[in-house]
Amino acid sequence: MSATVHELGKRAKAAAYSLALLPTNKKNSALAAIADALEANTAAVLAANEADLDAARERGTSPAMLDRLKLDEKRVKDIAQAVRHIITLDDPVGRILEGRTIENGLIIQKVTVPLGVAGIIYEARPNVTVDAATLCLKSGNCCILRGGKEAINSNKVLMQTMRTALEQQGLDPDIMNLVEDTSRESSAAMMKMNEYLDVLIPRGGAGLIRSVVQNATVPVIETGTGNCHVFVDASADLEMAVRIITNAKAQRPSVCNAAENLLVHTAVANEFLPMAKKALDEHSVELRGDEQTVEILGSDVKAAEEADYATEFLDYVLAVKVVESIDEAIAHINRYGTGHSESIVTSDYANSQKFLHQVDAAAVYVNASTRFTDGGEFGLGAEIGISTQKLHARGPMGLQELTTHKYMIYGSGQIR
Amino acid sequence: MSATVHELGKRAKAAAYSLALLPTNKKNSALAAIADALEANTAAVLAANEADLDAARERGTSPAMLDRLKLDEKRVKDIAQAVRHIITLDDPVGRILEGRTIENGLIIQKVTVPLGVAGIIYEARPNVTVDAATLCLKSGNCCILRGGKEAINSNKVLMQTMRTALEQQGLDPDIMNLVEDTSRESSAAMMKMNEYLDVLIPRGGAGLIRSVVQNATVPVIETGTGNCHVFVDASADLEMAVRIITNAKAQRPSVCNAAENLLVHTAVANEFLPMAKKALDEHSVELRGDEQTVEILGSDVKAAEEADYATEFLDYVLAVKVVESIDEAIAHINRYGTGHSESIVTSDYANSQKFLHQVDAAAVYVNASTRFTDGGEFGLGAEIGISTQKLHARGPMGLQELTTHKYMIYGSGQIR
Repeated sequence: MSATVHELGKRAKAAAYSLALLPTNKKNSALAAIADALEANTAAVLAANEADLDAARERGTSPAMLDRLKLDEKRVKDIAQAVRHIITLDDPVGRILEGRTIENGLIIQKVTVPLGVAGIIYEARPNVTVDAATLCLKSGNCCILRGGKEAINSNKVLMQTMRTALEQQGLDPDIMNLVEDTSRESSAAMMKMNEYLDVLIPRGGAGLIRSVVQNATVPVIETGTGNCHVFVDASADLEMAVRIITNAKAQRPSVCNAAENLLVHTAVANEFLPMAKKALDEHSVELRGDEQTVEILGSDVKAAEEADYATEFLDYVLAVKVVESIDEAIAHINRYGTGHSESIVTSDYANSQKFLHQVDAAAVYVNASTRFTDGGEFGLGAEIGISTQKLHARGPMGLQELTTHKYMIYGSGQIR
Repeated sequence: MSATVHELGKRAKAAAYSLALLPTNKKNSALAAIADALEANTAAVLAANEADLDAARERGTSPAMLDRLKLDEKRVKDIAQAVRHIITLDDPVGRILEGRTIENGLIIQKVTVPLGVAGIIYEARPNVTVDAATLCLKSGNCCILRGGKEAINSNKVLMQTMRTALEQQGLDPDIMNLVEDTSRESSAAMMKMNEYLDVLIPRGGAGLIRSVVQNATVPVIETGTGNCHVFVDASADLEMAVRIITNAKAQRPSVCNAAENLLVHTAVANEFLPMAKKALDEHSVELRGDEQTVEILGSDVKAAEEADYATEFLDYVLAVKVVESIDEAIAHINRYGTGHSESIVTSDYANSQKFLHQVDAAAVYVNASTRFTDGGEFGLGAEIGISTQKLHARGPMGLQELTTHKYMIYGSGQIR
């Protein structure tokens, strides 16, 4: 019988105290062992994955979803290589962030330490299981992973492979845990498990994230909902603007940093919108426009409803709106955006500064595609998610964001 | 009629966008005007405070509580001086934390920005009203303050004084807001007001903080619950240990960094406990001990119940326990502590390191009193609270912890 979520919590918390003290070389040896074990176990992983795929096909799952779920020899190798890449990253634990000696001689140091136990609730991608567990390991955190039922067979084999590798390295396998019960009850239990969980990170669609934010008493880091905008200012280089919106929308529409909305200054709408439509048509992007957009582009452009401006399509669909001013654009973004990534195309200095400072989002761009919001592009080396909240982490979260700090104070009898 | 909490939220959110852009010199002028106005308005403040005190006396409030509530000319002057001190502190907004130019020429900067709107729920101290509002102002945050009903008359006059000063400086008075409805409903509404509040900071007793953590969907920073321990190791300088526990317990027992528990290694318990009792007796500290403590100190020491080890007394009461080893001490602290401040008295190098690394708390001390955990002592200049959680802020929170960051990215047409 599989362990209850609370039992996993208790075991993970117990394992966390020793993991927090594990030196970098030991953590790196464990990561290397995990990568090797994953490759060595490819056949078993693929067999389990085939069972997941069979069940998914029986349920009539879409080809896009099947592709997310699917592993093959190359993908397992890629997963192992990603683990080996984590070995090369700096250990985020034990950095002395600052320190001082105060008047009475007390030495105060602010030192990074692991958060403790991280809970991660995610959906159908089995690669997240290895990715999240190994990023947690490198940052000294135990983890409790609760993936979707679609990938449960794959996840079980991946987790067992990692736990066995930890044991063979003389480490406590309870450093990494998989919740095998994929009912709603198991995720609901995790959301209230303040005793054992130090942080809860939902990775997935907007519905999952909303549910966690509304119901969790454990501190949450919201990730990944991206209703991103590109605003084409009156002074924009229009050809650059076409390249940017086409890239932001169509290069990979299923990801959170893809653009979902195009705002166009009224002064250039007549000239720009037909140029943009032509480029977006090549990618079969469906436009949904406000009245003025429809007037300019003609009736084969669908009329947008208000809900379209609040929707993360994650598809070849783009909401379009003509605005009277940069102020209207900023107000629209701050109202409908999710605080992820926003871009202005402009050649006006004052407007670039205004947009950078007044738009309330994790990443604000001048003259570039929103698609750059990414741990790899930002130089973090790896990414556990992109935070759209303001506390603790905002924007791409790397290993450092999986740590907190502690003050270590060296005295010689000081009293107040 | 007073505005509803939602109306205040809406107004504060609207004011936040312009406040975020206000340069330091404007914020400092406003702070100076507020300090002057508070002093000029002393008579009105004291009259309102007298009404609060009358009502409190009628309810039979304790002298200690009356003292927390009471203002006089000197205290108003101290409050104004504290505001002037904030002027001298560095502006935490607009610091470029890091930055890089990536291969394709994109310039990525990580810049500190205000959180937006901070909600603060607190109890009877009217000085918190000014203190919280002005720390928020300096860090570019609007605030919605919800103080206790005991201080409502004082709070109204203090808030009106500050808002008028803001207006006279040409600023939006909705930067600072007081919830005049002190019912449970108003704090419950704040806890769910994700649309308008970026962070919620409860300042007060354990009950208030627990209620906020359990019920809030707005991100919370927990502050101030301190069940702090002093552990006297086998190798301790026992006279130093007496000075430290006496200071940590009795110098100011009502504050969160005061010690509530004394753990003593069994090897020195016979010698140390009578020394400690003698010193603590001078401050009339009541001891509640485990079996072995009672055996050593005699039957005038009360037997501790398990609940005593989990209690923040905030009074001249100390729970005492004899432990077999440093490991037992650490396990006890990690079980019963609140993650605030913990101290070991030892002359053993390995034990000092073990305690520093294995105790899970915001501040861990070797050979010093827990009483040093304080924004002033840690060099932050001012303090909005002491965080006992791990996300975003841990330990004393100064102005910097009232900010988040944003990535500002300068491009020239880059796409992926």
